[in-house]
Amino acid sequence: MPRVSQDHLAARRRQILDGARACFARHGYEGATVRRLEEATGLSRGAIFHHFRDKESLFLALAEDDAARMADVVAAQGLVQVMRDLLANGSAHPADWLGTRLEVSRRLRTDPEFRARWAERSERLTVATRNRLARQREAGNLRDDIDIEVLTAFLELALEGLVSHVAMGLPADDLEPVLDLVEETVRRHRARDEPR
Amino acid sequence: MPRVSQDHLAARRRQILDGARACFARHGYEGATVRRLEEATGLSRGAIFHHFRDKESLFLALAEDDAARMADVVAAQGLVQVMRDLLANGSAHPADWLGTRLEVSRRLRTDPEFRARWAERSERLTVATRNRLARQREAGNLRDDIDIEVLTAFLELALEGLVSHVAMGLPADDLEPVLDLVEETVRRHRARDEPR
Repeated sequence: MPRVSQDHLAARRRQILDGARACFARHGYEGATVRRLEEATGLSRGAIFHHFRDKESLFLALAEDDAARMADVVAAQGLVQVMRDLLANGSAHPADWLGTRLEVSRRLRTDPEFRARWAERSERLTVATRNRLARQREAGNLRDDIDIEVLTAFLELALEGLVSHVAMGLPADDLEPVLDLVEETVRRHRARDEPR
Repeated sequence: MPRVSQDHLAARRRQILDGARACFARHGYEGATVRRLEEATGLSRGAIFHHFRDKESLFLALAEDDAARMADVVAAQGLVQVMRDLLANGSAHPADWLGTRLEVSRRLRTDPEFRARWAERSERLTVATRNRLARQREAGNLRDDIDIEVLTAFLELALEGLVSHVAMGLPADDLEPVLDLVEETVRRHRARDEPR
Protein backbone atom coordinates (compact mmCIF):
# COMPACT_ATOMS: atom_id res chain seq x y z
CA MET A 1 0.00 0.00 0.00
CA PRO A 2 1.43 3.44 -0.86
CA ARG A 3 2.65 5.44 2.09
CA VAL A 4 0.19 8.27 1.59
CA SER A 5 -2.78 5.89 1.86
CA GLN A 6 -1.39 4.37 5.02
CA ASP A 7 -1.01 7.82 6.53
CA HIS A 8 -4.53 8.65 5.45
CA LEU A 9 -5.90 5.48 7.01
CA ALA A 10 -4.07 6.11 10.27
CA ALA A 11 -5.31 9.71 10.40
CA ARG A 12 -8.88 8.61 9.72
CA ARG A 13 -8.64 5.96 12.41
CA ARG A 14 -7.34 8.59 14.85
CA GLN A 15 -10.19 10.92 13.94
CA ILE A 16 -12.73 8.18 14.66
CA LEU A 17 -11.12 7.20 17.96
CA ASP A 18 -10.90 10.79 19.22
CA GLY A 19 -14.49 11.56 18.34
CA ALA A 20 -15.73 8.26 19.75
CA ARG A 21 -13.90 8.80 23.04
CA ALA A 22 -15.57 12.18 23.50
CA CYS A 23 -18.93 10.65 22.56
CA PHE A 24 -18.63 7.70 24.98
CA ALA A 25 -17.45 10.06 27.71
CA ARG A 26 -20.39 12.37 27.21
CA HIS A 27 -23.22 9.90 26.65
CA GLY A 28 -22.00 6.68 28.24
CA TYR A 29 -21.70 3.35 26.46
CA GLU A 30 -25.40 2.77 25.83
CA GLY A 31 -26.06 6.43 25.09
CA ALA A 32 -23.37 6.58 22.39
CA THR A 33 -25.73 5.79 19.52
CA VAL A 34 -24.55 5.41 15.94
CA ARG A 35 -26.07 8.80 15.11
CA ARG A 36 -24.14 10.44 17.95
CA LEU A 37 -20.95 8.68 16.91
CA GLU A 38 -21.44 10.10 13.42
CA GLU A 39 -21.86 13.61 14.82
CA ALA A 40 -18.88 13.30 17.15
CA THR A 41 -16.51 11.96 14.50
CA GLY A 42 -17.86 14.01 11.60
CA LEU A 43 -18.03 10.79 9.55
CA SER A 44 -20.76 8.55 8.22
CA ARG A 45 -21.58 5.22 9.83
CA GLY A 46 -20.22 3.58 6.70
CA ALA A 47 -16.84 5.24 7.19
CA ILE A 48 -16.77 4.48 10.93
CA PHE A 49 -17.63 0.82 10.59
CA HIS A 50 -15.25 0.43 7.68
CA HIS A 51 -12.49 0.92 10.28
CA PHE A 52 -14.12 -0.77 13.27
CA ARG A 53 -16.35 -3.83 13.10
CA ASP A 54 -18.93 -2.51 15.54
CA LYS A 55 -19.44 -0.22 18.54
CA GLU A 56 -17.96 -2.80 20.87
CA SER A 57 -14.77 -2.97 18.81
CA LEU A 58 -14.54 0.82 18.82
CA PHE A 59 -14.89 0.91 22.59
CA LEU A 60 -12.33 -1.84 23.06
CA ALA A 61 -9.88 -0.05 20.75
CA LEU A 62 -10.11 2.95 23.09
CA ALA A 63 -9.52 0.71 26.10
CA GLU A 64 -6.52 -0.70 24.28
CA ASP A 65 -5.22 2.83 23.61
CA ASP A 66 -5.50 3.52 27.35
CA ALA A 67 -3.72 0.31 28.24
CA ALA A 68 -0.89 1.05 25.79
CA ARG A 69 -0.43 4.59 27.08
CA MET A 70 -0.50 3.42 30.70
CA ALA A 71 1.91 0.59 29.93
CA ASP A 72 4.40 3.13 28.57
CA VAL A 73 4.18 5.16 31.78
CA VAL A 74 4.48 1.97 33.83
CA ALA A 75 7.63 0.91 31.98
CA ALA A 76 9.31 4.25 32.62
CA GLN A 77 7.92 5.29 35.99
CA GLY A 78 5.69 2.58 37.44
CA LEU A 79 1.97 2.10 38.07
CA VAL A 80 1.86 4.58 40.94
CA GLN A 81 2.83 7.27 38.42
CA VAL A 82 -0.20 6.25 36.33
CA MET A 83 -2.30 6.89 39.43
CA ARG A 84 -0.61 10.24 40.07
CA ASP A 85 -1.33 11.23 36.47
CA LEU A 86 -4.98 10.27 36.97
CA LEU A 87 -5.11 12.60 39.97
CA ALA A 88 -3.36 15.46 38.20
CA ASN A 89 -5.29 17.88 36.05
CA GLY A 90 -4.97 17.49 32.32
CA SER A 91 -5.02 13.70 32.53
CA ALA A 92 -5.75 11.89 29.29
CA HIS A 93 -8.43 9.98 31.24
CA PRO A 94 -10.99 12.47 32.48
CA ALA A 95 -13.74 11.42 34.85
CA ASP A 96 -16.43 11.14 32.15
CA TRP A 97 -14.50 8.56 30.19
CA LEU A 98 -13.60 6.63 33.35
CA GLY A 99 -17.28 6.64 34.24
CA THR A 100 -18.11 5.03 30.90
CA ARG A 101 -15.53 2.34 31.66
CA LEU A 102 -17.41 1.63 34.89
CA GLU A 103 -20.74 1.54 33.12
CA VAL A 104 -19.71 -1.47 31.09
CA SER A 105 -19.11 -3.46 34.27
CA ARG A 106 -22.41 -5.32 33.89
CA ARG A 107 -21.53 -6.21 30.35
CA LEU A 108 -18.07 -7.37 31.43
CA ARG A 109 -19.61 -9.56 34.08
CA THR A 110 -22.35 -11.11 32.03
CA ASP A 111 -20.83 -11.37 28.55
CA PRO A 112 -17.87 -13.78 28.54
CA GLU A 113 -16.75 -12.83 25.03
CA PHE A 114 -16.72 -9.13 25.82
CA ARG A 115 -14.85 -9.86 29.05
CA ALA A 116 -12.27 -11.94 27.18
CA ARG A 117 -11.65 -9.15 24.67
CA TRP A 118 -11.39 -6.59 27.47
CA ALA A 119 -9.07 -8.82 29.51
CA GLU A 120 -6.76 -9.28 26.53
CA ARG A 121 -6.28 -5.52 26.43
CA SER A 122 -5.78 -4.96 30.14
CA GLU A 123 -3.36 -7.90 30.32
CA ARG A 124 -0.90 -5.57 28.63
CA LEU A 125 -0.92 -3.30 31.67
CA THR A 126 -0.49 -6.23 34.04
CA VAL A 127 2.50 -7.51 32.09
CA ALA A 128 4.09 -4.04 32.03
CA THR A 129 3.58 -3.72 35.79
CA ARG A 130 4.98 -7.17 36.50
CA ASN A 131 8.05 -6.47 34.34
CA ARG A 132 8.65 -3.12 35.99
CA LEU A 133 8.46 -4.71 39.44
CA ALA A 134 10.86 -7.47 38.40
CA ARG A 135 13.38 -4.84 37.28
CA GLN A 136 12.88 -2.90 40.50
CA ARG A 137 13.46 -6.03 42.51
CA GLU A 138 16.70 -6.73 40.63
CA ALA A 139 17.78 -3.17 41.37
CA GLY A 140 17.09 -3.77 45.06
CA ASN A 141 14.31 -1.18 45.24
CA LEU A 142 11.45 -3.59 45.91
CA ARG A 143 10.57 -5.31 49.15
CA ASP A 144 11.55 -8.96 48.82
CA ASP A 145 9.19 -10.61 51.33
CA ILE A 146 6.16 -10.49 49.00
CA ASP A 147 5.64 -12.20 45.67
CA ILE A 148 5.68 -9.98 42.58
CA GLU A 149 2.27 -11.34 41.54
CA VAL A 150 0.81 -10.13 44.84
CA LEU A 151 2.45 -6.71 44.56
CA THR A 152 1.17 -6.37 40.99
CA ALA A 153 -2.37 -7.24 42.08
CA PHE A 154 -2.07 -4.82 45.01
CA LEU A 155 -1.10 -1.93 42.72
CA GLU A 156 -3.85 -2.83 40.25
CA LEU A 157 -6.42 -2.89 43.06
CA ALA A 158 -5.35 0.60 44.09
CA LEU A 159 -5.66 1.76 40.47
CA GLU A 160 -9.15 0.24 40.21
CA GLY A 161 -10.12 2.04 43.40
CA LEU A 162 -8.79 5.32 42.08
CA VAL A 163 -10.61 4.97 38.75
CA SER A 164 -13.86 4.30 40.62
CA HIS A 165 -13.22 7.20 43.00
CA VAL A 166 -12.49 9.70 40.23
CA ALA A 167 -15.35 8.45 38.05
CA MET A 168 -17.79 9.00 40.91
CA GLY A 169 -16.58 12.57 41.28
CA LEU A 170 -15.56 12.02 44.91
CA PRO A 171 -13.10 14.53 46.36
CA ALA A 172 -9.60 13.48 45.35
CA ASP A 173 -7.46 16.34 46.62
CA ASP A 174 -6.50 14.36 49.74
CA LEU A 175 -5.29 11.28 47.85
CA GLU A 176 -1.64 12.26 47.24
CA PRO A 177 -0.46 10.91 50.63
CA VAL A 178 -2.50 7.76 50.02
CA LEU A 179 -0.60 7.15 46.78
CA ASP A 180 2.64 7.81 48.66
CA LEU A 181 1.60 5.05 51.06
CA VAL A 182 0.75 2.69 48.19
CA GLU A 183 4.17 3.34 46.69
CA GLU A 184 5.95 2.92 50.00
CA THR A 185 4.18 -0.40 50.55
CA VAL A 186 5.83 -2.04 47.55
CA ARG A 187 9.24 -0.46 48.11
CA ARG A 188 12.08 -1.89 50.08
CA HIS A 189 12.08 -0.26 53.51
CA ARG A 190 15.73 0.63 53.81
CA ALA A 191 15.21 2.87 56.80
CA ARG A 192 13.71 -0.01 58.74
CA ASP A 193 15.68 -2.93 57.38
CA GLU A 194 19.16 -1.57 57.25
CA PRO A 195 21.21 1.62 57.46
CA ARG A 196 21.19 3.57 54.20
CA MET B 1 -48.76 4.19 66.99
CA PRO B 2 -49.70 0.71 68.20
CA ARG B 3 -46.88 -1.84 68.21
CA VAL B 4 -48.51 -4.14 65.70
CA SER B 5 -48.75 -1.35 63.10
CA GLN B 6 -45.14 -0.43 63.62
CA ASP B 7 -44.13 -4.05 63.11
CA HIS B 8 -46.29 -4.19 60.02
CA LEU B 9 -44.71 -1.04 58.61
CA ALA B 10 -41.21 -2.32 59.29
CA ALA B 11 -41.99 -5.66 57.64
CA ARG B 12 -43.49 -3.95 54.62
CA ARG B 13 -40.47 -1.66 54.34
CA ARG B 14 -38.20 -4.72 54.51
CA GLN B 15 -40.22 -6.47 51.82
CA ILE B 16 -39.86 -3.48 49.51
CA LEU B 17 -36.12 -3.14 50.15
CA ASP B 18 -35.40 -6.84 49.57
CA GLY B 19 -37.41 -6.92 46.35
CA ALA B 20 -35.91 -3.65 45.13
CA ARG B 21 -32.36 -4.84 45.80
CA ALA B 22 -32.94 -7.95 43.69
CA CYS B 23 -34.54 -5.83 40.98
CA PHE B 24 -31.70 -3.26 40.87
CA ALA B 25 -29.14 -6.06 40.89
CA ARG B 26 -30.82 -7.81 38.00
CA HIS B 27 -31.75 -4.88 35.76
CA GLY B 28 -29.39 -2.10 36.81
CA TYR B 29 -30.48 1.32 38.03
CA GLU B 30 -32.03 2.55 34.78
CA GLY B 31 -33.51 -0.85 33.98
CA ALA B 32 -35.33 -1.12 37.30
CA THR B 33 -38.58 0.35 36.04
CA VAL B 34 -41.57 0.96 38.30
CA ARG B 35 -43.30 -2.03 36.71
CA ARG B 36 -40.33 -4.27 37.46
CA LEU B 37 -40.12 -2.93 41.01
CA GLU B 38 -43.80 -3.85 41.43
CA GLU B 39 -43.13 -7.38 40.20
CA ALA B 40 -40.04 -7.82 42.35
CA THR B 41 -41.66 -6.57 45.55
CA GLY B 42 -45.12 -8.03 44.93
CA LEU B 43 -46.57 -4.63 45.77
CA SER B 44 -48.25 -1.84 43.83
CA ARG B 45 -46.44 1.37 42.97
CA GLY B 46 -48.79 3.14 45.38
CA ALA B 47 -47.61 0.92 48.24
CA ILE B 48 -43.95 1.23 47.27
CA PHE B 49 -43.93 5.00 46.99
CA HIS B 50 -45.94 5.34 50.17
CA HIS B 51 -42.77 4.12 51.93
CA PHE B 52 -40.14 5.70 49.67
CA ARG B 53 -40.48 9.07 47.96
CA ASP B 54 -39.10 7.88 44.63
CA LYS B 55 -36.76 5.37 42.98
CA GLU B 56 -33.73 7.41 43.96
CA SER B 57 -34.74 7.32 47.63
CA LEU B 58 -35.28 3.57 47.41
CA PHE B 59 -31.83 3.09 45.91
CA LEU B 60 -30.21 5.34 48.52
CA ALA B 61 -31.99 3.46 51.33
CA LEU B 62 -30.30 0.28 50.06
CA ALA B 63 -26.94 2.04 49.96
CA GLU B 64 -27.61 3.16 53.53
CA ASP B 65 -28.40 -0.42 54.54
CA ASP B 66 -25.06 -1.49 53.07
CA ALA B 67 -23.20 1.28 54.86
CA ALA B 68 -24.83 0.40 58.20
CA ARG B 69 -24.04 -3.30 57.83
CA MET B 70 -20.45 -2.57 56.80
CA ALA B 71 -20.05 -0.07 59.65
CA ASP B 72 -21.04 -2.82 62.12
CA VAL B 73 -18.38 -5.14 60.71
CA VAL B 74 -15.85 -2.29 60.75
CA ALA B 75 -16.54 -1.53 64.42
CA ALA B 76 -15.99 -5.16 65.43
CA GLN B 77 -13.35 -6.33 62.96
CA GLY B 78 -12.18 -3.49 60.73
CA LEU B 79 -12.59 -2.51 57.08
CA VAL B 80 -10.29 -5.25 55.80
CA GLN B 81 -12.82 -7.75 57.15
CA VAL B 82 -15.51 -6.05 55.06
CA MET B 83 -13.27 -6.69 52.05
CA ARG B 84 -12.71 -10.30 53.07
CA ASP B 85 -16.49 -10.74 53.37
CA LEU B 86 -16.88 -9.30 49.87
CA LEU B 87 -14.47 -11.91 48.55
CA ALA B 88 -16.11 -14.78 50.41
CA ASN B 89 -19.05 -16.60 48.95
CA GLY B 90 -22.43 -15.82 50.41
CA SER B 91 -21.63 -12.15 50.75
CA ALA B 92 -24.62 -9.87 51.26
CA HIS B 93 -23.25 -7.80 48.37
CA PRO B 94 -23.17 -9.98 45.29
CA ALA B 95 -21.55 -8.81 42.08
CA ASP B 96 -24.81 -7.81 40.40
CA TRP B 97 -25.71 -5.33 43.11
CA LEU B 98 -22.17 -3.96 43.23
CA GLY B 99 -22.38 -3.49 39.48
CA THR B 100 -25.51 -1.39 39.89
CA ARG B 101 -23.65 0.74 42.41
CA LEU B 102 -21.00 1.38 39.74
CA GLU B 103 -23.60 2.18 37.14
CA VAL B 104 -24.77 5.22 39.09
CA SER B 105 -21.28 6.72 38.91
CA ARG B 106 -22.27 9.10 36.12
CA ARG B 107 -25.25 10.24 38.13
CA LEU B 108 -23.06 10.70 41.22
CA ARG B 109 -20.63 12.78 39.22
CA THR B 110 -23.13 14.98 37.44
CA ASP B 111 -25.95 15.39 39.98
CA PRO B 112 -24.72 17.29 43.05
CA GLU B 113 -27.87 16.59 45.08
CA PHE B 114 -27.69 12.85 44.43
CA ARG B 115 -23.99 12.91 45.30
CA ALA B 116 -24.70 14.76 48.54
CA ARG B 117 -27.34 12.22 49.56
CA TRP B 118 -25.01 9.33 48.67
CA ALA B 119 -22.07 10.94 50.51
CA GLU B 120 -24.17 11.36 53.65
CA ARG B 121 -24.69 7.60 53.70
CA SER B 122 -21.15 6.55 52.99
CA GLU B 123 -19.84 9.04 55.55
CA ARG B 124 -21.10 6.55 58.12
CA LEU B 125 -18.59 3.98 56.91
CA THR B 126 -15.77 6.51 56.93
CA VAL B 127 -16.56 7.51 60.51
CA ALA B 128 -16.69 3.87 61.64
CA THR B 129 -13.34 3.20 59.96
CA ARG B 130 -11.72 6.28 61.47
CA ASN B 131 -13.00 5.37 64.94
CA ARG B 132 -11.81 1.81 64.62
CA LEU B 133 -8.35 2.97 63.57
CA ALA B 134 -8.22 5.43 66.48
CA ARG B 135 -8.96 2.59 68.91
CA GLN B 136 -6.37 0.38 67.22
CA ARG B 137 -3.81 3.14 67.53
CA GLU B 138 -4.53 3.52 71.24
CA ALA B 139 -4.10 -0.23 71.62
CA GLY B 140 -0.73 0.04 69.91
CA ASN B 141 -1.75 -2.10 66.92
CA LEU B 142 -1.55 0.63 64.31
CA ARG B 143 1.53 2.09 62.68
CA ASP B 144 2.05 5.56 64.12
CA ASP B 145 4.02 7.25 61.35
CA ILE B 146 0.96 7.89 59.16
CA ASP B 147 -2.07 10.04 59.88
CA ILE B 148 -5.34 8.21 60.60
CA GLU B 149 -7.08 10.21 57.85
CA VAL B 150 -4.57 8.87 55.33
CA LEU B 151 -4.90 5.29 56.57
CA THR B 152 -8.70 5.57 56.40
CA ALA B 153 -8.55 6.87 52.82
CA PHE B 154 -6.08 4.11 51.93
CA LEU B 155 -8.43 1.39 53.20
CA GLU B 156 -11.38 2.99 51.46
CA LEU B 157 -9.46 3.13 48.19
CA ALA B 158 -8.73 -0.59 48.48
CA LEU B 159 -12.44 -1.24 49.14
CA GLU B 160 -13.43 0.83 46.10
CA GLY B 161 -10.97 -1.16 44.01
CA LEU B 162 -12.36 -4.43 45.29
CA VAL B 163 -15.97 -3.41 44.63
CA SER B 164 -15.03 -2.47 41.07
CA HIS B 165 -13.05 -5.69 40.61
CA VAL B 166 -15.87 -7.94 41.84
CA ALA B 167 -18.54 -5.99 39.95
CA MET B 168 -16.61 -6.48 36.71
CA GLY B 169 -16.48 -10.21 37.32
CA LEU B 170 -12.67 -10.26 37.24
CA PRO B 171 -10.99 -13.29 38.84
CA ALA B 172 -10.81 -12.68 42.58
CA ASP B 173 -9.44 -15.95 43.89
CA ASP B 174 -5.92 -14.54 44.08
CA LEU B 175 -6.85 -11.50 46.15
CA GLU B 176 -6.54 -12.96 49.67
CA PRO B 177 -2.79 -12.24 49.91
CA VAL B 178 -3.44 -8.75 48.54
CA LEU B 179 -5.87 -8.07 51.38
CA ASP B 180 -3.28 -9.45 53.80
CA LEU B 181 -0.87 -6.86 52.42
CA VAL B 182 -3.46 -4.07 52.75
CA GLU B 183 -3.99 -5.06 56.37
CA GLU B 184 -0.29 -5.33 57.10
CA THR B 185 0.26 -1.88 55.64
CA VAL B 186 -1.85 -0.15 58.30
CA ARG B 187 -0.60 -2.33 61.18
CA ARG B 188 2.31 -1.61 63.42
CA HIS B 189 5.29 -3.62 62.19
CA ARG B 190 6.41 -5.11 65.48
CA ALA B 191 8.78 -7.56 63.84
CA ARG B 192 10.63 -4.70 62.21
CA ASP B 193 10.32 -1.99 64.82
CA GLU B 194 10.98 -3.86 68.00
CA PRO B 195 11.29 -7.30 69.52
CA ARG B 196 7.93 -8.91 70.23
